Amino acid sequence: MNTKYIDSIRSIEDFRRIPENELDCLAAEIREFLVRSVSKTGGHLASNLGVVELTIALQRAFDTPKDKIIFDVGHQTYVNKILTGRAAEFPTLRQMDGLAGFPKTEESEFDTFNTGHSSTSISAALGMLRAMRIKGTPGRVVAVIGDGALTGGMAFEALNDAGQSELPLIVVLNDNNMSISKNVGALPRHLDSMRVSSGYLAFKRGMVNMLDKMTKAGPRIHAWLSKVKSRIKYLLLPNVLFEEMGFTYLGPVSGHDIQSLTEALNLAKKVPNPVLLHVLTVKGKGYGPAEKEPSRFHGIGKFDPDTGRSPGTAKKDNSAIAGETLCRIGRQEKDLAVITAAMSEGTGMEPFREAFPERFFDVGIAEQHAVTMAAGLAMGGMKPVVAIYSSFLQRAYDQMLHDVALQRLHVVFAIDRAGLVGADGETHQGVYDIAYCLTMPYVEIYSPASKGELEEMLKMAVEGGVPAAVRYGKGTLPDRVYPAVEYGKWIEIKPIAKVTVVATGRMVEIAERAVENLDAGLVNARFIRPMDEAMLDIIKQKASYVITIEDGIAQGGMGSRIAQRLAGIKVECMGVSEKPVGQGTCDEQTRLCGMDERAVRVRVLMAMEGIK
Amino acid sequence: MNTKYIDSIRSIEDFRRIPENELDCLAAEIREFLVRSVSKTGGHLASNLGVVELTIALQRAFDTPKDKIIFDVGHQTYVNKILTGRAAEFPTLRQMDGLAGFPKTEESEFDTFNTGHSSTSISAALGMLRAMRIKGTPGRVVAVIGDGALTGGMAFEALNDAGQSELPLIVVLNDNNMSISKNVGALPRHLDSMRVSSGYLAFKRGMVNMLDKMTKAGPRIHAWLSKVKSRIKYLLLPNVLFEEMGFTYLGPVSGHDIQSLTEALNLAKKVPNPVLLHVLTVKGKGYGPAEKEPSRFHGIGKFDPDTGRSPGTAKKDNSAIAGETLCRIGRQEKDLAVITAAMSEGTGMEPFREAFPERFFDVGIAEQHAVTMAAGLAMGGMKPVVAIYSSFLQRAYDQMLHDVALQRLHVVFAIDRAGLVGADGETHQGVYDIAYCLTMPYVEIYSPASKGELEEMLKMAVEGGVPAAVRYGKGTLPDRVYPAVEYGKWIEIKPIAKVTVVATGRMVEIAERAVENLDAGLVNARFIRPMDEAMLDIIKQKASYVITIEDGIAQGGMGSRIAQRLAGIKVECMGVSEKPVGQGTCDEQTRLCGMDERAVRVRVLMAMEGIK
Repeated sequence: MNTKYIDSIRSIEDFRRIPENELDCLAAEIREFLVRSVSKTGGHLASNLGVVELTIALQRAFDTPKDKIIFDVGHQTYVNKILTGRAAEFPTLRQMDGLAGFPKTEESEFDTFNTGHSSTSISAALGMLRAMRIKGTPGRVVAVIGDGALTGGMAFEALNDAGQSELPLIVVLNDNNMSISKNVGALPRHLDSMRVSSGYLAFKRGMVNMLDKMTKAGPRIHAWLSKVKSRIKYLLLPNVLFEEMGFTYLGPVSGHDIQSLTEALNLAKKVPNPVLLHVLTVKGKGYGPAEKEPSRFHGIGKFDPDTGRSPGTAKKDNSAIAGETLCRIGRQEKDLAVITAAMSEGTGMEPFREAFPERFFDVGIAEQHAVTMAAGLAMGGMKPVVAIYSSFLQRAYDQMLHDVALQRLHVVFAIDRAGLVGADGETHQGVYDIAYCLTMPYVEIYSPASKGELEEMLKMAVEGGVPAAVRYGKGTLPDRVYPAVEYGKWIEIKPIAKVTVVATGRMVEIAERAVENLDAGLVNARFIRPMDEAMLDIIKQKASYVITIEDGIAQGGMGSRIAQRLAGIKVECMGVSEKPVGQGTCDEQTRLCGMDERAVRVRVLMAMEGIK
Repeated sequence: MNTKYIDSIRSIEDFRRIPENELDCLAAEIREFLVRSVSKTGGHLASNLGVVELTIALQRAFDTPKDKIIFDVGHQTYVNKILTGRAAEFPTLRQMDGLAGFPKTEESEFDTFNTGHSSTSISAALGMLRAMRIKGTPGRVVAVIGDGALTGGMAFEALNDAGQSELPLIVVLNDNNMSISKNVGALPRHLDSMRVSSGYLAFKRGMVNMLDKMTKAGPRIHAWLSKVKSRIKYLLLPNVLFEEMGFTYLGPVSGHDIQSLTEALNLAKKVPNPVLLHVLTVKGKGYGPAEKEPSRFHGIGKFDPDTGRSPGTAKKDNSAIAGETLCRIGRQEKDLAVITAAMSEGTGMEPFREAFPERFFDVGIAEQHAVTMAAGLAMGGMKPVVAIYSSFLQRAYDQMLHDVALQRLHVVFAIDRAGLVGADGETHQGVYDIAYCLTMPYVEIYSPASKGELEEMLKMAVEGGVPAAVRYGKGTLPDRVYPAVEYGKWIEIKPIAKVTVVATGRMVEIAERAVENLDAGLVNARFIRPMDEAMLDIIKQKASYVITIEDGIAQGGMGSRIAQRLAGIKVECMGVSEKPVGQGTCDEQTRLCGMDERAVRVRVLMAMEGIK
């Protein structure tokens, strides 16, 4: 592999010295470097392959770090890291103390704002630009946002404010799958004069009917017609939405042509008010396997760079089990519906989508709407399950509290990626959900410790009639068989003793190994809310030292509740530290938080020692 | 006052029997009824006066309760309550166990979804419609949303999903101040062919310059030109934004003409896909004082219906003090900026807006953007203060955690309406903020118990350099003078004793009265985070029974943290019950939660009894 250019880039100045006519060669080299490098470490590939030329053009047109570039959902900043002299660190990508997979202000002055969650870039950019204006600091601010992230409501809020601000904020819309166009629906709507008349409406209905009647050719003609109309409309109209909001619209420009991009960016710099540059890119560009399967190559583990194949993993993970379980329930339970916010694959819900398309709703990156829409479904008598990552559910905190909990609606939250999540680091840790769900009235929290419990608890939640969150982590819960789940009941895995460990979720298995051969009790706290009051009474009688362990923040979660409940006896709460936990493997993070088998065993031994 | 029609409406059927040509008389009667009634009880007036005809037309065109109407930010449902037979209950409006000021599903089958916070209606409506379609239940679903609420990001998320759904969802846009139009900015932007060319940009710049140069006449011509262009654009374009999203656009229709409204609604019913009906209304319509000052008559206390005058309140409330304090700080501290999300008056920030317009940002109903934009300001070296109601900050939970807390940015949250809020009830209670702020790393929580402390703590937070929330309730903190605030330090108001009360914020005053003449200690816990570790050690030594009191949920807040810290001695946590607290006066709610002077005194006496 040739890395002539990349090797020469130790700093942004090195990059800026590369002659313009050699930038295409650099782009080709970066592409190969990304494929080779990510094939060894895992990481986000497809989105980075899509922004190679765009990032090069940005770093040419703008004078960073004086100018600020904020990449939305920052996993698309690998190229930026290379251009700013960080290529040599790629072997450590997403590893403990290694190169971050997201922008990190601590890592480089070219990472201007930490973006992990989606749709934040325009708000942050506008704030930074306003600060520069007030303080008289020279420089421009650019937000780079994908069309997916643009569907997140806060991006719209930010566009609205930026449009009014009349500040020269530059928003680069990285449009890689025409999802905006796809939203446009099936029939020509923009025929001004006819639009409102009932004649036009009748005409439209007639047309749909007519087309529908052409049984065989119909759907095809219909689709073709829609496509043509959409295209025409797209050519004429995408600007209107943004212009309407106060932006000058430029584009669309090919996102893989450095020269056009540079020209467009230089034009954007001249606009004295908010400007949106529409760039068309291809996810996975230049790497066949990723172009074919951009979703698989979005975030990927190690793979064979020549074939694109990933080493097979036979094991079904928790997401797959959740998806299959909901499919199974869905066959009987016709009221079951599944809602996801652009996480259908990640949450294992593809089988449900295929089996029950009419009861499956992927609303795009729009967690707030997902939750309140689910509340509406529940109000209408359905049994909705919102399948969502723990850290993304944070964005719907108010909707979960205001629309679901306060109305005590039967919405189930299948909280995936709960607990420590590994390589994504701080912004994606699912360690807050126990604590924030506990702030809400009526929301029950189920915490399976095994595959079987996950299945049983999902079923219980769907049948339950109350708001409930079933939380499970990334990866795979153990296969072991525990007694059947009884609502609200914990189980003694080892009889309650003077020193007793109360563990929940994936921590049960770790605790089980930790207390092996020790004279300590172990309880599997399957329900974080409601708690097993009867068993708590027994614990209060028999134990004098209780250690709680949960895969979430140590303060404010299950342990805190147990400590309050067991006031009088010593309760030690183990969990994730308050200091945010950075990237690493899940095992490393568990160790770092002092929650691994050895650490738990030490705490138990110390407790036993103290009691004697 | 004539209430012939209103008296006759005991049920929706009674309303439906009123002949069409008498509906205008009914409207006039309702208007007078609303003014008279709200002048006695207080409540939301201006928005309800604006939707009299609209609600009449809706209840004529639709077959409720089979059809569902969901009013966004449900304080605009008074008319709906009257039409569905609840006029007689208006003397109890917003009072304990009385008629709710918002839709309440428990109250009536015509209240289909509880809406307190803004921008939820389209999501809820879409969910309900989907449920009806899946279950085969007949009926239509209508969301009624104001132009202000439409700026909330989740409304956009919902429009996007609804547009794609192709379901016949009906969205009525109640546009009462043309804020959409105002967003459109100052210069004509929609000149397609010229738009992208640098020639056009030069022309635009030239035009602005030219206009600016016409010193005297300039601004006026400029403004006139903008107005004309905006109007033209408004006539041609509002539809595009919605059509672009997949909606059929109808309107605009006068919102005060029952017949036009009914026709438009009946037309909307015929559209087989998502439809948006644009209705123009006047806030406060028909009542002079409210038309003149719609903001003051948005939510108002008792007033004189003839003059519109409110009884003077000389007392400065917490909001006013916060606003004045920030003004005072802002004079020295040039980096101080204030951000609000359409709550400038409510949070007392108007003086700051007037004094420092260039450092004041009202982003509209857009809490998520407000917080991340503030994070951007902080990243750019400013010292932003987000002035926001406790219950609305819930909507920016993720932004506060992900963008502010994880990056440990110096953003100050001036949390107004913290604690029990009175007549707005469940959805507006500010009782969750202590608990949810505590789930976030690094966020400090300051809890003033007096006016002086509020001032000192705001100053401390602005100077502090870390994320910090200063929380204070509705109304007025006591005037009393406590020793100067020291960072992180609590103060002993009565010496720590065997039984010691640890109170925070407005509960300090109540506790002070409760422990009068009793041999019990009292601590003013000024800082909820960081806690005063030194004083906690003293408490641990000297006390054997600690009672904590906070104006927030009893579990998961300050008390829980203290209980965990003081493990070994008995800690009783007083606070708001988990069951959501309904409307009433703040005093009634405090009593209901067992947090009034008498209740506290009883707990202290019982604790003293138990210890002996």
